[in-house]
Amino acid sequence: MFNAKVGLIGFGTIGGGVADIIIKKREFWQNTLGIDVELKMIVDTDITSDRGVDVTGVILSDNYKDLIADEEISTIVELVGGYGFAKDFVVEALKAGKNIVTANKALIATYGTELYAAAKEGNADLFYDAAVAGGIPIVKAVKEALQANTITDMYGIINGTCNYVLTEMEINGLTFDAAIKQAQELGFAELDPTFDIEGVDTGHKIAILASLASWSNVKADSFLVEGISKITAEDIGYAKELGYKIKLLAIYRDLGDDKIEVRVHPTMIPLNSTLAVIDGEFNAVKVTGDSVEELLFKGKGAGRFPTASAVVSDVLDIVKNEEFGAKRRLLPEFESDHVTKTMIEQKDFVSEYYLRFVTADKIGVLSSITSILGENGVSIKSIIQKKVDENAETAHFVILTHKTTEGTVQSSMKAFNSLSFLKGETQLIRVEEM
Amino acid sequence: MFNAKVGLIGFGTIGGGVADIIIKKREFWQNTLGIDVELKMIVDTDITSDRGVDVTGVILSDNYKDLIADEEISTIVELVGGYGFAKDFVVEALKAGKNIVTANKALIATYGTELYAAAKEGNADLFYDAAVAGGIPIVKAVKEALQANTITDMYGIINGTCNYVLTEMEINGLTFDAAIKQAQELGFAELDPTFDIEGVDTGHKIAILASLASWSNVKADSFLVEGISKITAEDIGYAKELGYKIKLLAIYRDLGDDKIEVRVHPTMIPLNSTLAVIDGEFNAVKVTGDSVEELLFKGKGAGRFPTASAVVSDVLDIVKNEEFGAKRRLLPEFESDHVTKTMIEQKDFVSEYYLRFVTADKIGVLSSITSILGENGVSIKSIIQKKVDENAETAHFVILTHKTTEGTVQSSMKAFNSLSFLKGETQLIRVEEM
Repeated sequence: MFNAKVGLIGFGTIGGGVADIIIKKREFWQNTLGIDVELKMIVDTDITSDRGVDVTGVILSDNYKDLIADEEISTIVELVGGYGFAKDFVVEALKAGKNIVTANKALIATYGTELYAAAKEGNADLFYDAAVAGGIPIVKAVKEALQANTITDMYGIINGTCNYVLTEMEINGLTFDAAIKQAQELGFAELDPTFDIEGVDTGHKIAILASLASWSNVKADSFLVEGISKITAEDIGYAKELGYKIKLLAIYRDLGDDKIEVRVHPTMIPLNSTLAVIDGEFNAVKVTGDSVEELLFKGKGAGRFPTASAVVSDVLDIVKNEEFGAKRRLLPEFESDHVTKTMIEQKDFVSEYYLRFVTADKIGVLSSITSILGENGVSIKSIIQKKVDENAETAHFVILTHKTTEGTVQSSMKAFNSLSFLKGETQLIRVEEM
Repeated sequence: MFNAKVGLIGFGTIGGGVADIIIKKREFWQNTLGIDVELKMIVDTDITSDRGVDVTGVILSDNYKDLIADEEISTIVELVGGYGFAKDFVVEALKAGKNIVTANKALIATYGTELYAAAKEGNADLFYDAAVAGGIPIVKAVKEALQANTITDMYGIINGTCNYVLTEMEINGLTFDAAIKQAQELGFAELDPTFDIEGVDTGHKIAILASLASWSNVKADSFLVEGISKITAEDIGYAKELGYKIKLLAIYRDLGDDKIEVRVHPTMIPLNSTLAVIDGEFNAVKVTGDSVEELLFKGKGAGRFPTASAVVSDVLDIVKNEEFGAKRRLLPEFESDHVTKTMIEQKDFVSEYYLRFVTADKIGVLSSITSILGENGVSIKSIIQKKVDENAETAHFVILTHKTTEGTVQSSMKAFNSLSFLKGETQLIRVEEM
């Protein structure tokens, strides 16, 4: 039976799950998959704390060089995270011919091209299904199961922290701050949740999916990324009144003529749409292919075992490649731009828009706002007007526009600055009818 | 660039879609996947009718032997359907070393073991992702993406005809017959829809998924298969009143201790459950793995291009195996029983039950029914009583039981036969709280 020796670096929550699965399922895979997968070594700076996993017989080390130096270890699972040490380590390991499995979205989204060059140099495999949407096999789906298709669009709810916070705000009426606090207590948000809340993590993930779907290299810093920190309870209320929910969506569209569109922002989507029912910490990706039409994948996008499930499935894929001498069987998609695609600019986005104005409540306010929109060619679909205090000195005007380009709306936003009766910033949320 | 020559037998709706995709995407795959996939020959008994696909340069033949005899053709797509000729052809082709891609669920579910023996003999690959849930990559998910998991359960809505009919009955109040007729007019039901309506097709599909999930050979004729033809508008109405929808569910459960449970039957599921919102011709499979937890896959389970998407993705997988000399890289799962699992008997199913009685409306009816249930140890959760005609001579009693074994309910059903006031058959529908 083909034996493969695997190493693990990063013995934290997910690393513990990976070790646990590989150790416990070893015999089962011998009987079913017909391969013997052995966890030979675990490396971590803290290698003595108990992780609740029986690692009898596994070499424990605090020196990453031991992993790379071990000639028997052919595949290494990297779960250190971040771009610093993790990047140097992965590049060195790949160049040394070690296959790498990682859940590190930041690393793949930022240094994909460089990592693939290292993988090519070392004739190694590089797998990262766990980097996007945790246990949902969306990378494998786009890369393999849908390879007969041109992916025409993808809409993803792929950050559990944001979705949990928005769901709590919506269903239980929590403020943004209270929802964050609760998410932290339940382990759905980091101590410093900035990367999640500001959309950076979602941006990394859609950059990876967009690169796979478009066969071009979509860099994580090359498109609009807006987080959810500016979303208020009022916005969620008005959205509901208008028939929408607010979700942090990652959007990819192939517009034809080698043009693509990628963006991450809070989005109002119809209450009855497929993604509107994806609540709490769940993730989901809706993918449309030119042949397969619309597919939905839903599941746990984070957590010890869901993420470890994706990591270990990748390990098994790699071991099968080794067994059959088929290393690098899947094309190294980040190696170069296979297809040249141009990303459209933000001003050319086409969407409907939700605009919320906080104004002094006096005559002429609405006509000033609507005339600016009219001058910029933005037509209005509906308006809500609400008094927001007892003395009726402040009002909210909510305007929902018809479909228009972002350029016309941004010009309007600039012109609004000249309106003296506006109090505070005007809220802009994009609306997708899905 | 690696060149692979592909043949196709069965130039119908899906065959036309497969030909169309392979011909139109050839150049794109050269630029992206780095392989040249050439459709060399199409075989059909009618090879002259126009299918709306430009097959210039493709050899057209009405003799299947031409396909097998062509030494350049390494992979054949079988879309003839059925068990007769298709089986003989696939066995002959596999033994001759041709890789086979098929969408033929009846064939795989019925002759999987035999086909895999032939594949082994010919050292060939056998792929069939399109056989279950059309464009949804559920076979690939269970076989590859979730391979780190033990699949603990699967619930599938995997027959578009049944789901369309049930949805129309529920939402638009159609009778069963009217819904079937409408489905036929729209192309969602065959002229003779028996195989779909009676659950046979769903049985084939869950047999395949259950075999993959359990690593044992689950035969399509070895478990309970009930169709939807006995479901009435009244049942759908009562279900709604009780907070449920009726769906034709395929169910697989790993009960531990090497025991599994497989069944297909109309099932009442809570209105707010994940699968209850899968309406119309859509398919969905909810899969739970011991690591990944709950995943949902939703999409088009039939139709020309969705099905062709799965077929062609399999072709590309096989071509990559060929390119890397990695034929039979994935384990031939039907080759033998890797793991011995016992299927529990129907009497040991545990479920809640919906029972609908048509009775003469007189005193003592309800107490006679409930005392039989009581004697058999079945406890009652709720009761609905309705008069069903003007003269109040006939009544419906609907009883929802608590969880119990099927044995106790079947014994009760037998005992009901002695009740003289019962008119017509007592309806039994299983209830899953999901």
